[in-house]
Amino acid sequence: MPAPNPSELAFIPFVSVENMMKLVHGIGLETMLRELADYIEEDFRRWELFDKTPRVASHSAEGVIELMPTSDGEVYGFKYVNGHPKNTRKGLQTVTAFGLLARVDTGYPVLLSEMTVLTAIRTAATSAMVARHLAPKGARTMAMIGNGAQSEFQALAMKAVCGIDAIRLYDIDSAATEKAMRNLAGHGITLTACATPEDAMEGAEIITTCTADKQYATILTDNMVGSGVHINAIGGDCPGKTELHKDILERSTVFVEYPPQTRIEGEIQQMPEDFPVTEMWQVITGDAPGRTDAQQITLFDGVGFATEDFSALRYIHDRLNDTGLYQNLDIIADPDDPRDLFGMLQRAAG
Amino acid sequence: MPAPNPSELAFIPFVSVENMMKLVHGIGLETMLRELADYIEEDFRRWELFDKTPRVASHSAEGVIELMPTSDGEVYGFKYVNGHPKNTRKGLQTVTAFGLLARVDTGYPVLLSEMTVLTAIRTAATSAMVARHLAPKGARTMAMIGNGAQSEFQALAMKAVCGIDAIRLYDIDSAATEKAMRNLAGHGITLTACATPEDAMEGAEIITTCTADKQYATILTDNMVGSGVHINAIGGDCPGKTELHKDILERSTVFVEYPPQTRIEGEIQQMPEDFPVTEMWQVITGDAPGRTDAQQITLFDGVGFATEDFSALRYIHDRLNDTGLYQNLDIIADPDDPRDLFGMLQRAAG
Repeated sequence: MPAPNPSELAFIPFVSVENMMKLVHGIGLETMLRELADYIEEDFRRWELFDKTPRVASHSAEGVIELMPTSDGEVYGFKYVNGHPKNTRKGLQTVTAFGLLARVDTGYPVLLSEMTVLTAIRTAATSAMVARHLAPKGARTMAMIGNGAQSEFQALAMKAVCGIDAIRLYDIDSAATEKAMRNLAGHGITLTACATPEDAMEGAEIITTCTADKQYATILTDNMVGSGVHINAIGGDCPGKTELHKDILERSTVFVEYPPQTRIEGEIQQMPEDFPVTEMWQVITGDAPGRTDAQQITLFDGVGFATEDFSALRYIHDRLNDTGLYQNLDIIADPDDPRDLFGMLQRAAG
Repeated sequence: MPAPNPSELAFIPFVSVENMMKLVHGIGLETMLRELADYIEEDFRRWELFDKTPRVASHSAEGVIELMPTSDGEVYGFKYVNGHPKNTRKGLQTVTAFGLLARVDTGYPVLLSEMTVLTAIRTAATSAMVARHLAPKGARTMAMIGNGAQSEFQALAMKAVCGIDAIRLYDIDSAATEKAMRNLAGHGITLTACATPEDAMEGAEIITTCTADKQYATILTDNMVGSGVHINAIGGDCPGKTELHKDILERSTVFVEYPPQTRIEGEIQQMPEDFPVTEMWQVITGDAPGRTDAQQITLFDGVGFATEDFSALRYIHDRLNDTGLYQNLDIIADPDDPRDLFGMLQRAAG
């Protein structure tokens, strides 16, 4: 990012939901999922550079509001995101989000963006990037347990990044499965609606669990999971919210993003504090093994980490140039003399 | 805040710098400082309700970027703010900020606002609210040490809230003093430019220090401070940045906002961890004494706390109705069916 002059810095580009959707369609969703998976992987590769902290959460009876900051030393980013499972009953979304990038050297923001749509895309791109490293070679079938707002993005990412071409869908609410089937029709994926989770598992090399209830749930029990699969468990993502029976964790090699956060929020919150996990960035740099044999169950205990949002915002910032798909937001005061904020205010009265 | 319907929630009001300045002039700056001092005091009075945490800081060689979240259980707020002392050399501001309010029950944002101008106003309103409790009765003269971007706001707040009508200004850069003198002319305050800090102290009942260098500085030494004054020390607000000689702290009764944050960032970072301080909210509720005698030196070690930004955003939210001084920002995705984010995206392609 070259340094713009101060008057340009008085405005920052804002990507609205409408413009984000136009940007997605301009690039093409599958292309974007592939490119974003590469951006996320690139930032995992330089993991040690990042200023990392567990997200800053404000919990209430109804849900959680979180701030997720990080920095690579040159660029700072953060996301605001909520998680309110009961929102859907009021016609609202479980998760909404927006995010920001700023220059570390001046602290001035350079991008504000909606991230409800973008988070759905980055979450799917992260899952697919991880599956590219851990799933059995030549995997073509995925079981998709939980067919809510994130499910279609997961499906397309696994297709675009990993070559999955058959998806078996299950949800406790069959209307959700029907919605996902409708949305995914015509995308070159063989779709099968399943009446039970066991049915969905049939022949699946990747199992994705993505359900939303804020409770200790057991979406998968031990006898449902055969050897050699990759489990992409992304619905257990806050304290008190899990999806897998702990026996599955005992049988699996567990991969995580950032252990201090995953131990609080992920499936491994059920396990002792020293339960062994592998950090995904080390698999990517080659410092730790990924899948080592065909019988192994690999399990990605994904909770979503700040660097993934950083990667997504960085991608949007890079792709925004010349598209015109943003508004300039007058969010930074820009007095002619930086010490004369009061003078600027006073002159505005005239 | 009554619950709006979902489609209204797809947009949130955004107050730009331009609209904030119009709002300030519409209300009148002195009126706003008085009203905001009352909002801040009201939130200090219900201090125990708030979810409090030291701000989340990302430090670099050039400065700091901070997130300051808090919640009263019904409304959540946070501020993004940077502090980059060398920015002014590039024609940029030391501090820029913006903030957000959201509903705790749904996590949906309800206000996004510039806060560069608003932070200057809330910082001054906080100082004045505190001085209203601690300064010697009938105080009319203030020494203003440091005549940068915050100084005129401090001056007007002390006038509007505490009845100060004479201000003695000093800055190591006389151009800054001249700027502040120009800006404050015609506001009903007797202004005196001083050649030395000692000269500025002459007859002052309140001493405000507000300088910006990121270093351990000694703006005030012990022999400069007479008995009975109130010191409003607001420039020492991050690790490694102080303004007062520690001997002054030893002689003073020190009042702070939130001890866990002030011990890291404030003047008392020079002192042992158990150095006694009084929490300002307890003075306001009557749980702790404020000024107890006329000879006492009271010292407000102000670093700025999240509840003050919360109060400021709450005030703006309350005052925004019907003014039209905002834009509607399309920052929240609003699918007809909250589980059908993908369908919304897909339909946007058409």
